[in-house]
Amino acid sequence: MPPATRPFLLADSQLTGHSIIAASLTRPAADEPPPAPSSAFCAHWPVAGRDGPRPFFSATAPQVAAACSAAAEAFNTFHVARSALASHTARWLTLLADRCLANQAEILALASRETGLTRCRLAREFGRMIGTLKLFAELAASGSWQEVLHSPPLAPAQAGPFNADLRRVNIPLGPVAVFTASNFPLAYGVCGGDFASAVCTGCPVIIKGHPAHPGTGEFLARLAATTLAESGLPSGFFSFLHAGGDRERPVGRELVLSPSIRAVGFTGSIAGGEALRHLIAAERQTDPIPLFAENGSCNLVLVCQSALRTRASQVATDLAISLTDSVGQQCTNTGLVAIEGSAADAAAFASQLATLASRAPARPMLTPRIAQGYHHRLQEVQSAGAATLAPNPTPRASTDPRCTPTILLAPIAQLLASPTLRDEVFGPAAIITAGSPSELAQLAHHSRGMLVGSIYGDAPDHASVRELTQALASRAGRIVLNGVPTGVRVAPAMVHGGPHPATSDPASTAVGPLAARRWTRPVCFQHTPGDALATSFLPGQLSGHLPAQPS
Amino acid sequence: MPPATRPFLLADSQLTGHSIIAASLTRPAADEPPPAPSSAFCAHWPVAGRDGPRPFFSATAPQVAAACSAAAEAFNTFHVARSALASHTARWLTLLADRCLANQAEILALASRETGLTRCRLAREFGRMIGTLKLFAELAASGSWQEVLHSPPLAPAQAGPFNADLRRVNIPLGPVAVFTASNFPLAYGVCGGDFASAVCTGCPVIIKGHPAHPGTGEFLARLAATTLAESGLPSGFFSFLHAGGDRERPVGRELVLSPSIRAVGFTGSIAGGEALRHLIAAERQTDPIPLFAENGSCNLVLVCQSALRTRASQVATDLAISLTDSVGQQCTNTGLVAIEGSAADAAAFASQLATLASRAPARPMLTPRIAQGYHHRLQEVQSAGAATLAPNPTPRASTDPRCTPTILLAPIAQLLASPTLRDEVFGPAAIITAGSPSELAQLAHHSRGMLVGSIYGDAPDHASVRELTQALASRAGRIVLNGVPTGVRVAPAMVHGGPHPATSDPASTAVGPLAARRWTRPVCFQHTPGDALATSFLPGQLSGHLPAQPS
Repeated sequence: MPPATRPFLLADSQLTGHSIIAASLTRPAADEPPPAPSSAFCAHWPVAGRDGPRPFFSATAPQVAAACSAAAEAFNTFHVARSALASHTARWLTLLADRCLANQAEILALASRETGLTRCRLAREFGRMIGTLKLFAELAASGSWQEVLHSPPLAPAQAGPFNADLRRVNIPLGPVAVFTASNFPLAYGVCGGDFASAVCTGCPVIIKGHPAHPGTGEFLARLAATTLAESGLPSGFFSFLHAGGDRERPVGRELVLSPSIRAVGFTGSIAGGEALRHLIAAERQTDPIPLFAENGSCNLVLVCQSALRTRASQVATDLAISLTDSVGQQCTNTGLVAIEGSAADAAAFASQLATLASRAPARPMLTPRIAQGYHHRLQEVQSAGAATLAPNPTPRASTDPRCTPTILLAPIAQLLASPTLRDEVFGPAAIITAGSPSELAQLAHHSRGMLVGSIYGDAPDHASVRELTQALASRAGRIVLNGVPTGVRVAPAMVHGGPHPATSDPASTAVGPLAARRWTRPVCFQHTPGDALATSFLPGQLSGHLPAQPS
Repeated sequence: MPPATRPFLLADSQLTGHSIIAASLTRPAADEPPPAPSSAFCAHWPVAGRDGPRPFFSATAPQVAAACSAAAEAFNTFHVARSALASHTARWLTLLADRCLANQAEILALASRETGLTRCRLAREFGRMIGTLKLFAELAASGSWQEVLHSPPLAPAQAGPFNADLRRVNIPLGPVAVFTASNFPLAYGVCGGDFASAVCTGCPVIIKGHPAHPGTGEFLARLAATTLAESGLPSGFFSFLHAGGDRERPVGRELVLSPSIRAVGFTGSIAGGEALRHLIAAERQTDPIPLFAENGSCNLVLVCQSALRTRASQVATDLAISLTDSVGQQCTNTGLVAIEGSAADAAAFASQLATLASRAPARPMLTPRIAQGYHHRLQEVQSAGAATLAPNPTPRASTDPRCTPTILLAPIAQLLASPTLRDEVFGPAAIITAGSPSELAQLAHHSRGMLVGSIYGDAPDHASVRELTQALASRAGRIVLNGVPTGVRVAPAMVHGGPHPATSDPASTAVGPLAARRWTRPVCFQHTPGDALATSFLPGQLSGHLPAQPS
């Protein structure tokens, strides 16, 4: 198919810096006052160590409103042709996956320049984005996200007082606002999991772009807009809003407070996710909507005694690679390592880990703000009693933007006493501690809700593994046995979620087919014939099933 | 089995008026100040037209705290024996169903005296309570509420960068607070759906009793406490708190704000459910918990032209029975009836409905407060432009506590303009209106979120039925074709839920096996062998799967 193999855009010189409203590149209307210069912003290019030259223009309030209205209108209008929806959404997601593949080199170049992440790392993420788009295309085509269930009437002998024919089906909530993440410009970006899972269920999507990678966002958004048009869906199904400068927060605020928005997806920091949650609670008291915020997480790795004795080097090597991958900028990164043993064991393990981590190629962080946050949090945990191990025999100049992995040591009593030490440090840092099995379990129980926890254990560690698994299960969305916490497989049994504050809704997952359920609610049709619901959740051919009019 | 057939309590003279904390009848401790007399209360006996003589004593703040601590301790302790949980919870629910059956006559007598509902009506509800207890006993025994899912690693050719073995399973959230309803003392009472579904998943339950039927509540709670002891579960798995007088709200407030409580179930009015939602949002900002409030609902019935022409009498008869059943005190009751036709058609239909409704045996409402609320809301809708049809040729004396069904008429333009008219009137009242198919669809679209909507249509009404189904689907949790909205079947495909404000969480249902999911969250176990998770969601026999220690 020629369009899928021919690149859509040849160069980022075709970027405009403007938002995409209802699938069209849109400059503010002529009768609007021109946007304030303070709402324009540039991307930061971390490896180059400077900002890019191109200005991007934050969406104006009327543009946000227009995107929301178009989404609501598209959703309500397309309702009447709902039976055709599945083929359209599947086609859109498939076309988009193909178009992204055809533009892979350009996307990776843009994303690498704007994030400082390596092409190799981004290629892995690109593969995950494509896999996710295809997964939700298949799910849309199969309709299995509707989770259709039929309870036919029982035989009179078994029946209770009410014996109606019931059919349950999930229906879409309506327009969804998606906040993209700084650290995963592809898998949690414009065409990422929140987008694809919402589209799968027939929800129009409005993306709030991330100011850390506006070029990548706009490029992907143009691919989404073009393929939307080819899919036959109404243009209101997709908008992309640039948001930066002094409009970074207002764009998000206006978006989630629009009455047209029926659900919100967010990937980012705990502070950001919590601010959105409080905003919705305070400002949408009479019209609440669900928020699915996947926030930061201080993930706990527990190493049992026998595993430590027999394979400390291997565990340290795996953790060092995991910790420094993506410059530590992953929500599944290791935050705390607690080993079953003495303070001397912790010091030895920490020293080994520090040496290994210092060998990782040095790279800059995503943005200066994130780098500042990393250093600020390191200072906080040091003030709270964690001691930094010399990470690097030859410290770099203070003007060098490259990030230094940091391994810290703290007594477990200190960790249990200090909430600051149990909070996330976003970056390649981990605090090492040691204790008895019951102290490790206590640490797990007192941890903040986390996305993922790991346990390393051998056969002699059986009792500890068992106790620690129990403890971790109460605080984590995923538990890894003998493996690092990073690495999220896109599969049905995946849970990428976890107790608050790691997410705002621990009953959901942001990854895997179950992610589609977030954008739906179940409806029960009583006495409604099945074939009327077969291709759609709404009656298609009812006439044969309604009582005939007596002549 | 003798205990199942021998009545546990012979008479309500054995009621004590005290709460049940950790499965034991508990008077306030000796070192506590005695509870204020204003926290004691009596049940209202509607048919007798007076309060019962026995005082009930609201739980004190230390009692609420003790119930919460006991629940948390029981949950955490029992964790270590999780693999045995399913058999214990199934046994408890089964024993309890049997014990309730053995005490059916006593339960119905108590409930009828305290609610004014007929024994016949309560016997139906009793059957539903027993069916629900047995359903969740089976679900607990089967473990299917865990929704276990395995994603084995893919063959290398199909695998992405991460190819871990994943197993997903739902785990219980922890202690659940359940607020019982005034109008369903059994199915939404102490041993009702919220209780049974929470117990099924292994969550301890603390019940806030309803002051409208404290004797029924205490009686059921003692059956629950006794069977709990026989089931082998720790006593902290069940508490029942009397709450009335000036402690009615404080008991609920203390309960939902306890850090031990991990989820809340509520059945009651919109005002009550919304107050709980706002309380949790405001007071548990850093430790949010899910609330599943099933609130009131103004349910819409739409009658298409042909159905009206051919079977108006039948529809009116069905609606009149439905409307006056349980003195209209059902959350699925009809609130608005919109017929496709002229104002004259509406007047004729309303007159027919009023005549039929007036023939229902007159009964008092549940409590004086509810009766006052009914009359207050009738005055409000009359002030907002709805005209009352003479319901009864011989009005009763103003001292007669029996409730009069009320049929009102309002122009559809008035309904569209006045939110007051589109709100619930709790009681046997319905507003009748008429309009074109598009006006009916507009009314559906502008309705508040509702639990259930009905559409009556014949074959010639096909186009209208289709359009109205679309419209109702956006505002209702259940849509009935050619049937009344009342009557909730306990079955897998049931959805007893709906958009806000009918519920606080439209993605959930309060009835059917799916109700168990509310008290759980999914956890993913990575690289964890299946047989270690087979009988439990936590590792049982791990040792064979952990790496052996090199000798």
